[in-house]
Amino acid sequence: MTDEPFVPPDPAEALAGLGMPMADAMRTQRAVRRLHLEPVSHEVLLPLLELSLKAPTSSNTQDWMYLVVEDRAQKEAIGKLGSRLFRIVDPIVVKQAKGDEQELRNMAPGRWQAQNFADLPVFVIPCYKRNLKHAPVGRPQIKVASFYGSVYPAVQNLLLGCRAVGLGASLQTLPIWYVPKARKILGLPRSIVPVCIIPIGWAKGNYGPTTRRPIGEVVHLDRYGNQPFLEP
Amino acid sequence: MTDEPFVPPDPAEALAGLGMPMADAMRTQRAVRRLHLEPVSHEVLLPLLELSLKAPTSSNTQDWMYLVVEDRAQKEAIGKLGSRLFRIVDPIVVKQAKGDEQELRNMAPGRWQAQNFADLPVFVIPCYKRNLKHAPVGRPQIKVASFYGSVYPAVQNLLLGCRAVGLGASLQTLPIWYVPKARKILGLPRSIVPVCIIPIGWAKGNYGPTTRRPIGEVVHLDRYGNQPFLEP
Repeated sequence: MTDEPFVPPDPAEALAGLGMPMADAMRTQRAVRRLHLEPVSHEVLLPLLELSLKAPTSSNTQDWMYLVVEDRAQKEAIGKLGSRLFRIVDPIVVKQAKGDEQELRNMAPGRWQAQNFADLPVFVIPCYKRNLKHAPVGRPQIKVASFYGSVYPAVQNLLLGCRAVGLGASLQTLPIWYVPKARKILGLPRSIVPVCIIPIGWAKGNYGPTTRRPIGEVVHLDRYGNQPFLEP
Repeated sequence: MTDEPFVPPDPAEALAGLGMPMADAMRTQRAVRRLHLEPVSHEVLLPLLELSLKAPTSSNTQDWMYLVVEDRAQKEAIGKLGSRLFRIVDPIVVKQAKGDEQELRNMAPGRWQAQNFADLPVFVIPCYKRNLKHAPVGRPQIKVASFYGSVYPAVQNLLLGCRAVGLGASLQTLPIWYVPKARKILGLPRSIVPVCIIPIGWAKGNYGPTTRRPIGEVVHLDRYGNQPFLEP
């Protein structure tokens, strides 16, 4: 392996990837945390954000907002917030892995990302507006389910879009765990709620198939416990 | 228009639609509520459910479950639950529309669906398991955001999959608004939380482009209020 600098692809060529067969994109989606540190062109990022917002929202409210963070001081501030929790959580999960080499290898990309947070090219922080029918915490469930049901479908579109053009991305909540502080860093008014954070950069890690339980174990027909599609 | 009975497509032919260009599927996704009442083959539905679960979950917990409801008595029980709220909400929204013909036309498919609930072919109810790190209500936000972030990405995959094969689908929370009752109908243990409900059938309504605000209005760079991509 040589250490030649990475040259990001031409934006138009990269965006052509959005025409990939949909099922292929879904089947090979995975959290890609090892990223090249070169910037991601707005000519690629903005069309991806635009496409992602074709997703549905509850009552068609479309009260979304994307905070795109590229400024180094801002990335450092968010990184500092996340690292407070990371320093507590990391030793616990390392200890829980009990020297299991495979487990430790799986954790390595996440740890690399936490340690290089401010160097990652760009973060997208999807936000949504709370109102009488949509709230990020509390009760009743319909209000909370409607809030997140207006954000995560667009987030999934964005993750699939990144995969299709060759950008690495992953869905995270931990780096903005302390929401009041995240809101302060980003200058958000109280009604605008940051929901999660997606670090994005040209993929160094690989996309590729993931493993899931057989569908027959996940599907129940008409009533819980009725599982006619279980494999014998 | 003739009233010939609808003949569902061959499952293999329908599933070939999953190879459609990803961006086309996203751009033409919309809530399709007018459905043919003929059954949806498991040969189509199960592969869509399987593909949808390629989506990510928080901490890779994969604690999901799909309740597929086709039994008429079960559909009637859920429909009864939803209609209690529908009968209260519907007159209010009709009144709010103030005779606006366009608004009333937009509402018609939803009202049709509420009135024909038990006749719709199949409902998918995505559920997720609550645990110490994932909860559907309450606080802190990270616990709630992580819960829904493990469900709605898969839901979006399912909605895109339906669009690609020609099935009508839409994301709804209202029909299961009273969660304890929904849980009782479905026989769900307390730890398994129904999140939303997706009525599915062969599309009678049309998929097609939707309108969204210009992306420059939605994107803020580095700090809330900094909007360099606004069109002049």
